[in-house]
Amino acid sequence: MNTTDLKITLAQYNVTIGDFDIIFQRVSDVMTLAERDGSDVVVFPELFLSGYPPLDRLEQESFLSKVALCLDKLKTLTEKTALIIGAPEKNKSGKGKALYNSALFLHEGKILHTARKGLIPNYDVFDEYRYFEPSDEFKVVEFKGHKIALTICEDLWDKSDALEYKIHPMEVLMQQNPDCIINIAASPFDYLKYQSRKNILIRKAEQTKLPLFYVNNMGAQAELIFDGGSMAISPKGEVCGQMRFFEEDCRTFSLNDIKSNMNPLKDIDIPAVEKIYQALVLGIRDYFSKTGFKKAVLGLSGGVDSALVAVLAAHALGSDNVQAIFLPTAYSSDESLNDARLLAEHLKMPFEIVSIESSFRNVLGTLQPVFKGMEEDITEENIQSRLRGMMLMAFSNKFGNILLNTSNKSEMATGYGTLYGDMCGSLSVIGDLYKTQVYELCRYINREEEIIPENILTKAPTAELKPGQKDSDSLPEYSLLDTVLFHYLEIGSTFETICGLPDVGQELAAKIVQMVDRNEFKRFQAPPVLRVSPKAFGMGRRFPLVGKM
Amino acid sequence: MNTTDLKITLAQYNVTIGDFDIIFQRVSDVMTLAERDGSDVVVFPELFLSGYPPLDRLEQESFLSKVALCLDKLKTLTEKTALIIGAPEKNKSGKGKALYNSALFLHEGKILHTARKGLIPNYDVFDEYRYFEPSDEFKVVEFKGHKIALTICEDLWDKSDALEYKIHPMEVLMQQNPDCIINIAASPFDYLKYQSRKNILIRKAEQTKLPLFYVNNMGAQAELIFDGGSMAISPKGEVCGQMRFFEEDCRTFSLNDIKSNMNPLKDIDIPAVEKIYQALVLGIRDYFSKTGFKKAVLGLSGGVDSALVAVLAAHALGSDNVQAIFLPTAYSSDESLNDARLLAEHLKMPFEIVSIESSFRNVLGTLQPVFKGMEEDITEENIQSRLRGMMLMAFSNKFGNILLNTSNKSEMATGYGTLYGDMCGSLSVIGDLYKTQVYELCRYINREEEIIPENILTKAPTAELKPGQKDSDSLPEYSLLDTVLFHYLEIGSTFETICGLPDVGQELAAKIVQMVDRNEFKRFQAPPVLRVSPKAFGMGRRFPLVGKM
Repeated sequence: MNTTDLKITLAQYNVTIGDFDIIFQRVSDVMTLAERDGSDVVVFPELFLSGYPPLDRLEQESFLSKVALCLDKLKTLTEKTALIIGAPEKNKSGKGKALYNSALFLHEGKILHTARKGLIPNYDVFDEYRYFEPSDEFKVVEFKGHKIALTICEDLWDKSDALEYKIHPMEVLMQQNPDCIINIAASPFDYLKYQSRKNILIRKAEQTKLPLFYVNNMGAQAELIFDGGSMAISPKGEVCGQMRFFEEDCRTFSLNDIKSNMNPLKDIDIPAVEKIYQALVLGIRDYFSKTGFKKAVLGLSGGVDSALVAVLAAHALGSDNVQAIFLPTAYSSDESLNDARLLAEHLKMPFEIVSIESSFRNVLGTLQPVFKGMEEDITEENIQSRLRGMMLMAFSNKFGNILLNTSNKSEMATGYGTLYGDMCGSLSVIGDLYKTQVYELCRYINREEEIIPENILTKAPTAELKPGQKDSDSLPEYSLLDTVLFHYLEIGSTFETICGLPDVGQELAAKIVQMVDRNEFKRFQAPPVLRVSPKAFGMGRRFPLVGKM
Repeated sequence: MNTTDLKITLAQYNVTIGDFDIIFQRVSDVMTLAERDGSDVVVFPELFLSGYPPLDRLEQESFLSKVALCLDKLKTLTEKTALIIGAPEKNKSGKGKALYNSALFLHEGKILHTARKGLIPNYDVFDEYRYFEPSDEFKVVEFKGHKIALTICEDLWDKSDALEYKIHPMEVLMQQNPDCIINIAASPFDYLKYQSRKNILIRKAEQTKLPLFYVNNMGAQAELIFDGGSMAISPKGEVCGQMRFFEEDCRTFSLNDIKSNMNPLKDIDIPAVEKIYQALVLGIRDYFSKTGFKKAVLGLSGGVDSALVAVLAAHALGSDNVQAIFLPTAYSSDESLNDARLLAEHLKMPFEIVSIESSFRNVLGTLQPVFKGMEEDITEENIQSRLRGMMLMAFSNKFGNILLNTSNKSEMATGYGTLYGDMCGSLSVIGDLYKTQVYELCRYINREEEIIPENILTKAPTAELKPGQKDSDSLPEYSLLDTVLFHYLEIGSTFETICGLPDVGQELAAKIVQMVDRNEFKRFQAPPVLRVSPKAFGMGRRFPLVGKM
């Protein structure tokens, strides 16, 4: 076995899909530094060369040409230090899908080795089989006398991690006696992911008795948030290197240090609520920076949901860049106004009041002849919500800022929201947080000082769309509702299990499940939701719009 | 070779996903008739037992239990006549995806044979690899002395049809000397599909020198429209039996008749425009009937798009069930009102006028203090569009009818539409028709009498959101625009090819491509679009929301 050292640089950088100039520049900068520091090889994440996930851009020849051009330029950077980078690679066999999801090992201006992904995820938010042919050939790469098992994301997993896979790339690679493992990944964040990801890596290092270098994607691409957190793990299964979460980072490791279990770290995991907070801030910030916008607008109702979004947006974009608007009717209470205004003051956020009462009355007047003799119902409530959406979109159009949606997951699930009203917005910031989680996050924000006025957290939630209205008039208590929703959506519990939950029973279970099933049509037109849970609304959950429930 | 005859009944029926009582009833009714007529085997389409496509319902245990229960009941129907039906089947191997996409051959109360799909489509609108393990075992089934090659949809295809497939189920089956082929399918309609589908079937019959029985799914499931058109094809490659398009149908064929090329039919293909018309009518009708709604509402602007949607809706639902509303401002012309009113008269459709002028002025007044000193711009145009959307949604809420969206594909592509305004609606009826195709369809509708007032078809298109506005102020001429869009979206031509199209050039090509790419965020929140082309917006086209273009 080779005992000379190898210096391996892991690089997690935040790039935009298809932004090839920046992608090249980022790699080039890191290569320069790494070469200066005597690093042998720099490792970037899965599909870093295109950005992840490129989706149907992969079917566009012009996109693939740009990938090829960028790759040619990257080769020139590898005269001394080598480069491992994820990229879509054309499948020239004429059989199977058009591309491979590959890790390219570049050195001395050439491709020294290509590792192709064998386990192609096609579940939840992943659609990789739409584009990528699974490989069934797995070979270690020899570099400076070392044999490296270079793998891509799920190829490192084994039977116990994903029952469904039929092949086991690591078993094939182990027969070739590698002396270390490098894995490049694009593993999206959810609040449970870090532990499961780390457990997989640790078990694999222990099983193989090899040092393991893992580099993960970092940055948000609309719905998907990548948390970075790249790691180096010793053959004893201890984490000896842990890179930053939700931030760019670059670290050079000595193979021998990791092999000898140098400086193992204590478990550095942080509470879920803190991770979610950081993820959402990154999600907002990247959506804006990657679409070229700086400023946001949102409706501040005095309620807890918009309060939380305001705090997150202020952190992500700067308070000056977030315009808060309070849009009252006669049904709005002074309490709401005071709470909203106080929050804006705490955040030093521009605050406007735009009453929709006059427009509301005007619209009702216009509709009076056609609605003559009919009772008031949900129609009039929705008109208020839609007028608010319209006013907020007018701000968005006039000042060129982006409207942030403030719906939570409990509302999205049950359809307790108005299409084209409070469901407006380019980005749903907290659409993957149940109402109870919204409160948790607010409590976390207020842990040291009262940023969100305490009254917002203690009063009963209301939409204020008619006199004396409370959420609890239409919805079960949130603690109960959220428990049922969590079981139905996240765990996928059977109906019988849900009925058996404390205080639930058949009637309530049926009511809630039906609300979820019947509101698929609303969610179809909802904004993209920042995903922080293992099962978010959006691309990871696909139900028929039309069907017998 | 067996020369005794076999009577094969092909059954294409329109069911709702998960509507197990109706699914059972439909099969039961057909089995009763078929048994009376001495049919040997009845054949239903791919996944008929669940409805197609069931999507993530396939991940719900309760859904799969209902499939199993329904299957047990179906077995009891097969004492005499056999039944072939598509169904999701649990993969009990413990390896690979949880399900197979199977054709179950039921006879004498038992499962005589199970054929499992080997070629699992995962492109365009298909996500089957999300759920289904590909099979690599293909065996003919023996029934009454006949050897039947029972296959599911793409398993019948071969290399020349789909370069990408690595296995060829029909080659395996041919080694077992079948004497006929039965293929069950769920092949969604597009205006080019029938010819390509028929060509594949004909070539396969010719190659194998076998009679081929093909049964296709029928009915619309939100975006996807299945056109039926099941066929029996002789070993000479001639269509000897052709079942109805866009309608339920059931026909019994004699194996020997088809084998001997009895009564070959002339090519019965109809013009694309006629197919599209029928597809859209079915798409509307099924969306309503399967969601339990009867009545529609739509905004009639006096323009060609809403005129076409009104005609289609009237045909699908009955004129009485479609409420047309004209929503003028001061910018609306008498010409528009007259055109809209005349169309409603022609269609005998309820017609209301609801002016948004007063509400528009009121909203502008409300916003005046915050917009003080700023020029009028797109903001004020969007407010009109959103007020219209709000009024239409108020009708929808108050009267419990569904708002039909009237955007066309040229608008959807270029972002020439207002989110939460004219992009409102539960169903986009013509969102897969370019503006030029909208005119074509209108001309087809008017082929015998003037249903759509001629003036609607000859005047210049305008959104009437400011004085003297014409579409051509903001967009290239539609004939040119649509050509470019067709090349970019449908053909997937390279940018260079698009620049080289007559009268296009680099500047215009870049402008149009950029409009398409930049408006992904609007389409993300668009209603589901009835798909009639090979590349529609929606589930079949997935682009990053955030990316460098």
